Amino acid sequence: MSDTSRTYDVVVIGAGPVGENVADRTRAAGLSTVIVERELLGGECSFWACEPSKALLRPVLARADARRVPGLRHAVGGPLDVPAVFAHRDVMVNHWHDEDQVEWLNSVSVDLVRGHGRLDGPRQVVVSTPEGGTVRLNARQAVAVCTGTGAALPDLPHLDTLRYWTNREATSADAVPRRLVVVGGGVVAVEMATAWRALGSEVTMLVRGGGLLTRMESFAGEMVADELREAGVDLRFGTAVTSVTRVGGPEGVVHLVSSDGGQLEADEILFATGRTPQTGDIGLETIGLTPGEWLTVDDTFQVTAVEDGWLYAVGDVNHRALLTHQGKYQARIAGPVIAARAQGEPVDTSRWGTHVATADSAALPQVVFTDPEVASVGLTAHEAERAGLRVKAVDHNFAGVAGAFQYAEGFRGRARMVIDLDRGTVVGVTFVGPGIAELLYSATVVVAGEVPVDRLWHAVPAFPTISEVWLRLLEAHRG
Amino acid sequence: MSDTSRTYDVVVIGAGPVGENVADRTRAAGLSTVIVERELLGGECSFWACEPSKALLRPVLARADARRVPGLRHAVGGPLDVPAVFAHRDVMVNHWHDEDQVEWLNSVSVDLVRGHGRLDGPRQVVVSTPEGGTVRLNARQAVAVCTGTGAALPDLPHLDTLRYWTNREATSADAVPRRLVVVGGGVVAVEMATAWRALGSEVTMLVRGGGLLTRMESFAGEMVADELREAGVDLRFGTAVTSVTRVGGPEGVVHLVSSDGGQLEADEILFATGRTPQTGDIGLETIGLTPGEWLTVDDTFQVTAVEDGWLYAVGDVNHRALLTHQGKYQARIAGPVIAARAQGEPVDTSRWGTHVATADSAALPQVVFTDPEVASVGLTAHEAERAGLRVKAVDHNFAGVAGAFQYAEGFRGRARMVIDLDRGTVVGVTFVGPGIAELLYSATVVVAGEVPVDRLWHAVPAFPTISEVWLRLLEAHRG
Repeated sequence: MSDTSRTYDVVVIGAGPVGENVADRTRAAGLSTVIVERELLGGECSFWACEPSKALLRPVLARADARRVPGLRHAVGGPLDVPAVFAHRDVMVNHWHDEDQVEWLNSVSVDLVRGHGRLDGPRQVVVSTPEGGTVRLNARQAVAVCTGTGAALPDLPHLDTLRYWTNREATSADAVPRRLVVVGGGVVAVEMATAWRALGSEVTMLVRGGGLLTRMESFAGEMVADELREAGVDLRFGTAVTSVTRVGGPEGVVHLVSSDGGQLEADEILFATGRTPQTGDIGLETIGLTPGEWLTVDDTFQVTAVEDGWLYAVGDVNHRALLTHQGKYQARIAGPVIAARAQGEPVDTSRWGTHVATADSAALPQVVFTDPEVASVGLTAHEAERAGLRVKAVDHNFAGVAGAFQYAEGFRGRARMVIDLDRGTVVGVTFVGPGIAELLYSATVVVAGEVPVDRLWHAVPAFPTISEVWLRLLEAHRG
Repeated sequence: MSDTSRTYDVVVIGAGPVGENVADRTRAAGLSTVIVERELLGGECSFWACEPSKALLRPVLARADARRVPGLRHAVGGPLDVPAVFAHRDVMVNHWHDEDQVEWLNSVSVDLVRGHGRLDGPRQVVVSTPEGGTVRLNARQAVAVCTGTGAALPDLPHLDTLRYWTNREATSADAVPRRLVVVGGGVVAVEMATAWRALGSEVTMLVRGGGLLTRMESFAGEMVADELREAGVDLRFGTAVTSVTRVGGPEGVVHLVSSDGGQLEADEILFATGRTPQTGDIGLETIGLTPGEWLTVDDTFQVTAVEDGWLYAVGDVNHRALLTHQGKYQARIAGPVIAARAQGEPVDTSRWGTHVATADSAALPQVVFTDPEVASVGLTAHEAERAGLRVKAVDHNFAGVAGAFQYAEGFRGRARMVIDLDRGTVVGVTFVGPGIAELLYSATVVVAGEVPVDRLWHAVPAFPTISEVWLRLLEAHRG
């Protein structure tokens, strides 16, 4: 293939949801834009994370919900239709094809170069194409790195020779392992333990620390742990993996030794042990940065270590918030920032302004699709205190919330509202319980909107819905 | 029984949720308080409306949801366990016993007089007790009428001799009529048609007007009508009832003639034809008011036609908002108002102030538990225009909302956001679709909190949840 060179206003590396949104916004603002992708357009979220994981989890949670409904429970005591679940998952990821995304990209007039993009000095990106050629892309205004993250692996001997699962295999597998070991205690770990247990695996979770979901309010992880145990998951805290091998070749049985000297056999092992930035092979060394590191940015997504402000990093790779929706939010801001600077227009960097991602630190929402569901936004009580705020944490266990008990017999849940006493606003909310995922957005509006608590008294929850827990929280606050 | 006379600061007539909350708040503020109830403490909502209706509907909607989930669908094609549904409903209404409420009333030190309370001149209430005695209650500060509403019936010949259903029988029946006629097209009508159809009845709806749920955005009623028809409900618009009889005595077959000359047979007939205030026999004539009329109040719930401000009317009976949660909201305001005036403290009547129910007109939320669910708050586009606002209605059909399609295969829904262009805020929101009930509170906060649309850009919906429709609405607005 012959080498070519092209010039654009904006070069975006990585066509996951974040890169797509950055490109969409810069193009819509009139800047010529090209996007580079070495895998599938749509990225990790569309094909190996959010979409397939939720496609696996929705039947699990819907069945759990149905089992708590008298009059329906009798029908749903049995197993899921596992082939149907897999088939649906395959549809939700479009069978790992990205024509839809290509079509969309065309519709918004963003150019696409397939291949591995690497920086090659300031404002230069060189793409190694699948055909063996190279395409040099010159960025007049900005390069945006949106390469996201990959699974971080523990430091274990001979791991490179082992066949194992990361989030990719855990979300795309189409056979149910008889025995699955999940290493980790974060979101991927608890969601995949929930899914595969319900699909039929015997699941053992090895968690290095003493709890699950440790970045959230502690009761969240505790309640999820209780339900995982009830579902039959063997949950072992304070346990690290010290060695893993497969006995009898790549298809052999996983043999695992843990830090307490225990031994364990399994058919598959999932490492859900964090994320690492996809910056190891994108040419960072050509602009004086260190490959493999996170790209630190300011509130407008300019990489702080790079002069002249031409390099942006948006989404997971900047380590501000490793969540698809938040990366897309960043993209909705970064695109207009790039455009404003290119066009010499003012950049609004005031708190909650048009061009800064204030919500990254103040109102980051997250839903964990376990049974019970966990949803949180903003600061935990501990985080708020550490930030020097004078706060009060108000808790409620959904007692007397008629809508919760209408939703699920024996509803078990808990809610916490963290109030900034000096400003009279809510800075963090956590809900745990069945059916609370859609309730999170109310909390997100409360926190991001800085709605005064006094005004919340006029925001009436409809009866009987689970949202009436808001009233109980406000009453508990007032005392 | 001997007659007695007692004096309290506050006399509350009617111990539904509204009366309970008024009494709770006045008592908590230090005012001696007595409450009068002729039926069950807890009222219509607890025993013959919200609670039992939602107990009947939850299995119906959970089954409808489960049928849209691949991998689970195979299990839920069959009928509900109807006896289990009824048994659960009976539990949710505590078998129509009110000990729990009595216990609660004792715990908050509010006195109770059982019997029929009637006004007897200013500040006087006379209660006819079940034992045949009377108790005279003198109110030093205020009398609060919280008697709510009953079913309004159409003006038909010989209706008084007919056995028929109102909301009370429709929510408490424990046998499934083979053929049920529902007269009406409002919330009670569509919810009960949904429930009884799923429980096994052949349901015919006779609707005088041309649509369902006509106080909401028109697409809401249209989508509910479509689904009712798909569920097998025979839906007839523009049809009034002109005569109803039972052939063969009280247990005989209902024979009905409609305005188009059509005839219809059924086993039960439900009149869901509106509500009428429970003021026909509460002594209004002794204070110069007309029995049977709604009690018009100001924003602090004082009955405007009564001098000296001693009479309050809270909840349905004042006709501001015929919804349990809104009546309770009014009670949370009216109680402190009464207390403030009694104690000579200032009353804050500024918009969204402590002592006025601003949300009654600006942010009234409602959920209709049909399939699809309908949820709305604030003004419809039409209402906003009629109020003289310069508004823009933004619609979205959930296309591209990943969380919606994760929730339900083939998700059908629609959302509308009504924006006040002059103030840059949202004045009304309507959602239609499965699983959207808990999403309403976000809209309620947006409307009641008057959160600027610009700030909503920073309120990020978690991916993949149905709430991402907010992003689509905002994008559609920005264009």
